[in-house]
Amino acid sequence: MTSSPSSSTPSRTATSSSTGLRNIGGADPRRAGAVLALGIVSRNSALVASDEAPPDLDSPLPAPPAVPETLARRAVVLVGMPGAGKSSIGRRLAARLGLPFVDADAEIEAAAGLPITEIFARYGEPYFRDGERRVITRLLAGPPLVLATGGGAFADARTRAAVRDSGALSVWLRCGLPTLLRRVAGREHRPMFLNADPRAVLERLIAARHPLFAEADIIVDCTDEPPEVTTRRVAEAVAAHRAPQTLPVGLGERGYDILVGTGLLARAGALLAPVLPTRRVAIISDSDVAPLHLPALREGLREAGFAILAEHLVPPGEKTKCFAATQAALETILGAGADRRTSVIALGGGVVGDLAGFVAAIALRGLPFVQVPTTLLAQVDSSVGGKTGINLSLGKNLVGAFHQPRMVLADTGVLGTLPPRELRAGWAEVAKHGLISGDAFWEWCERMGPAAVAGDPAALAHAVLESCRLKSAVVAADEREESEEGGRALLNLGHTFGHALEAEAGYGGGLLHGEAVAVGLGLAAALSARLGHCAQELPGRVIAHLQSVGLPARIGDLDRPFSATLLLQRMRKDKKARDGALRFVLLKGPGGCFTAGDVPAEQVERLLRDEGCGA
Amino acid sequence: MTSSPSSSTPSRTATSSSTGLRNIGGADPRRAGAVLALGIVSRNSALVASDEAPPDLDSPLPAPPAVPETLARRAVVLVGMPGAGKSSIGRRLAARLGLPFVDADAEIEAAAGLPITEIFARYGEPYFRDGERRVITRLLAGPPLVLATGGGAFADARTRAAVRDSGALSVWLRCGLPTLLRRVAGREHRPMFLNADPRAVLERLIAARHPLFAEADIIVDCTDEPPEVTTRRVAEAVAAHRAPQTLPVGLGERGYDILVGTGLLARAGALLAPVLPTRRVAIISDSDVAPLHLPALREGLREAGFAILAEHLVPPGEKTKCFAATQAALETILGAGADRRTSVIALGGGVVGDLAGFVAAIALRGLPFVQVPTTLLAQVDSSVGGKTGINLSLGKNLVGAFHQPRMVLADTGVLGTLPPRELRAGWAEVAKHGLISGDAFWEWCERMGPAAVAGDPAALAHAVLESCRLKSAVVAADEREESEEGGRALLNLGHTFGHALEAEAGYGGGLLHGEAVAVGLGLAAALSARLGHCAQELPGRVIAHLQSVGLPARIGDLDRPFSATLLLQRMRKDKKARDGALRFVLLKGPGGCFTAGDVPAEQVERLLRDEGCGA
Repeated sequence: MTSSPSSSTPSRTATSSSTGLRNIGGADPRRAGAVLALGIVSRNSALVASDEAPPDLDSPLPAPPAVPETLARRAVVLVGMPGAGKSSIGRRLAARLGLPFVDADAEIEAAAGLPITEIFARYGEPYFRDGERRVITRLLAGPPLVLATGGGAFADARTRAAVRDSGALSVWLRCGLPTLLRRVAGREHRPMFLNADPRAVLERLIAARHPLFAEADIIVDCTDEPPEVTTRRVAEAVAAHRAPQTLPVGLGERGYDILVGTGLLARAGALLAPVLPTRRVAIISDSDVAPLHLPALREGLREAGFAILAEHLVPPGEKTKCFAATQAALETILGAGADRRTSVIALGGGVVGDLAGFVAAIALRGLPFVQVPTTLLAQVDSSVGGKTGINLSLGKNLVGAFHQPRMVLADTGVLGTLPPRELRAGWAEVAKHGLISGDAFWEWCERMGPAAVAGDPAALAHAVLESCRLKSAVVAADEREESEEGGRALLNLGHTFGHALEAEAGYGGGLLHGEAVAVGLGLAAALSARLGHCAQELPGRVIAHLQSVGLPARIGDLDRPFSATLLLQRMRKDKKARDGALRFVLLKGPGGCFTAGDVPAEQVERLLRDEGCGA
Repeated sequence: MTSSPSSSTPSRTATSSSTGLRNIGGADPRRAGAVLALGIVSRNSALVASDEAPPDLDSPLPAPPAVPETLARRAVVLVGMPGAGKSSIGRRLAARLGLPFVDADAEIEAAAGLPITEIFARYGEPYFRDGERRVITRLLAGPPLVLATGGGAFADARTRAAVRDSGALSVWLRCGLPTLLRRVAGREHRPMFLNADPRAVLERLIAARHPLFAEADIIVDCTDEPPEVTTRRVAEAVAAHRAPQTLPVGLGERGYDILVGTGLLARAGALLAPVLPTRRVAIISDSDVAPLHLPALREGLREAGFAILAEHLVPPGEKTKCFAATQAALETILGAGADRRTSVIALGGGVVGDLAGFVAAIALRGLPFVQVPTTLLAQVDSSVGGKTGINLSLGKNLVGAFHQPRMVLADTGVLGTLPPRELRAGWAEVAKHGLISGDAFWEWCERMGPAAVAGDPAALAHAVLESCRLKSAVVAADEREESEEGGRALLNLGHTFGHALEAEAGYGGGLLHGEAVAVGLGLAAALSARLGHCAQELPGRVIAHLQSVGLPARIGDLDRPFSATLLLQRMRKDKKARDGALRFVLLKGPGGCFTAGDVPAEQVERLLRDEGCGA
């Protein structure tokens, strides 16, 4: 049992007693002790003949002593290059957080009874990485701790996955080459620098490992400041960290996660790398969104080592959902050298998501696809569920594919850049989800809607999260809209009226989709009440809520006249209509939607006339 | 036990003894006996209180007596309208074939101890149809027989499926309204005609049932000729009948059958009805194929009650595989009112199949799809496997979808109309399948290839069947071409060279795809021999076979020069190439294909130069 006299943190004892050994080397003043430890182990290792079975790295070690009440409830895993200060910062951080500190390399050596150089030399790297991963997994399965990992541990895909799956918070201590060179100056005796130029060695390692370290949950830039300062900054980042909320969409082998949170664009590469086949992507965006958000996404991808083969910008607006734009995007992406393992990223609203998803679905018969929705409407609705497609002059979304994304990054931080009218329009789908979901979410909408459309970040984040939760559950149960009555069909609440209003108004932007849906929700509630399906006060409540967020909710709220006859004609031709019969989703109340295929046309016409439509 | 004194067939005894009862009514001289039987059963039925449990139609009856060695090995099921002569023809046919004759209605009455009218009246039609199906299933599970069914039996989907699944041969005795009216003239006492105009009743039944009867394996038109003549014609049709060969493609819920045979177009409706959601279709064909084969397909569909919403013709040739043609086809089909349950039928060669399949894949996010390939190339290759798509100026098939058909109808009877050059070009893929499959099919190709390309129907049918057998097995194991080394990749034997030759020659028809593949097969064999993978005589055998059917097999066989450098450039850009490395399927011998990603460019260049390419 060794113990470092120069240790300056209260967690030292825990560290030493839990491993029985100290870190090998490190940019701290305890190198003498470390070398001593290595000497001891080396003597032990002489007892092991090299043709014996490799050491069992899973053998249990004495349990670490109970620690006092901790400040953090999750393990913190420090990753970074040699010389980044994982041990030095780790010990100080552990003290601050009231957690034990463990050095993974020391733990491995203790378990093996061999120094790491010996394990490498005798059994090879694959054996070492395998044992390393098992030791780290075992440590992270125990009580919270601060764990410093060897430089190569987090660069191993399976170890990265093990850290992620454990729920630990990974922190990359990012150091530039000059700083690293200064810090490793005294370590030329280490095997990795023997007979080699440290600069060349570090440059090679940086190129290989930085893109993988970028998958850490938190990145802290380390300079030549005192370790206490860096430790404080790490502790602050840990305290400030809010993991994105993850909503799994349960579609078996096509299942994927929706991530809802802030700052996701800047971390896109790290978040996407684990779910994409390669770090090669093409981005499709529009000329409104790209200036605002493409730089952040680009940097977030490049930082994680992604190559962006193409950035294809389309004009904003519904007219972009056409064959010409599809062909142009395909020619850009494939002309840039996309192969079957290149992913397509949609950065934008519903139009960009629908077009890019369709492009991804048909390029080389299907490329991996990612949705990065930047409007409220896209975040709460169109980016989730795998529906992609374009329009024909015959109607909207008549051409397309079901093509599920590999991930949806709903960065609620970008909603602040939305024009207020677009934010309000997106709220119509949130309100729709509230009505479909039930009293809890609906009443939250009524209460918090005005704050959300005024830009309250917490309210917007909650609206996106709950909408995605509802929609992903519905989609998981009915991926291809095959349920006749329930399933995805219920998501059309307000849409039979909405589509007809939108088509009559033309798609030139005079009436936004969300605005048409808002009026549609009001009409659907009114129709439900007239047919005796719901309480007579429900339409008033629905209309009052929509109007409270600044949305139109009645035909009279729109600044143009509509003809009941023409609206009925449109509704008879709706994609979901059958044999010309009118098909509506009606309400018994919040949480009580159902499909009705037998609504008499006269009832609908009377409602439209009463609402002010002409003949 | 009743026995008809006027029965004229040796199988009568078997009939009577197996049921204990006679047919009720029927256009034959035995009506008196039938009425007597009805009387007896009616008396029995008086003993059954109407609130008792319904009779058990599954109760076993005495087994029919052993019959002498039969002439036919399959049961024959006669279906048709009342008055079509099912009993009269059935008894005579049974005598001719040396099989027992059974009347299903009589069998049901015997099992129930009630006349059919009583079963209907007391327990309703669903109960009756259910029992009917079980009785028919039980009868068809026994030794071969001739079975006359009630008029409504085969109109019931589950009973139709039971007959199909039993392996019995179904024969529709098709009768026009005037003939039927004359024959039912004496049956006004039957419940279906009571207080009704027989013409109106029959017209209604014809409209409802003829489309379903059309699903029978054989259709025989019955006129007022003597029953002996009709019987002879039925017996001849039974003897001449060759069921299409069915190759199931095992893709789970996307699985489907490939049918290979003659006369399939004329029976398309009957063959397709069981696998499509509705009898509404749109046909895509080209202006070369449509005049030759669309009338037969149209009739085959209409006869089975199909509505053809649209017939969309495209110009023949590779240039049709473009976005403009895709959009035009979508607008036609959707403009004609196609909904999600409307199927798209491709009638034509590979271009039509690829385009129509892609249209089906993206119309309303996916419509059911049927391939009716009319070229040898399409029948042996492109119609099987679900690859659909169009070209970009950047390359062929860069845009598309995996969209499996619901059925492939490979009617080898249409191959007789193919221009000889197209037939030969299709043979290249047959030869490729021979080489992939192994000695048996490859040696058959060597032996029978010249006869097949000369138009020998049996040889062509065998080539199609064996090609589809090979390809469907490969596709079932690797639907989406995800296997890196084996699976669908092996189907690219000869295609790395072939695609490069085709691209260099341009797609204007100067060099057909099959011709390019033929030269590619020769080069792949030559490269395999040079690299020491196969016997040195294999390239000579491959080249000799291809030349024996009139195909080019060496670059020198083509009437234009090629540049080795340009061909290599093309091969490096091949869709299957990775990082610019050359990728070939090579041969160890027939049945021994493998993927090689490490072929040195110099070896390939030397081969091309030795084969006469310029620099």
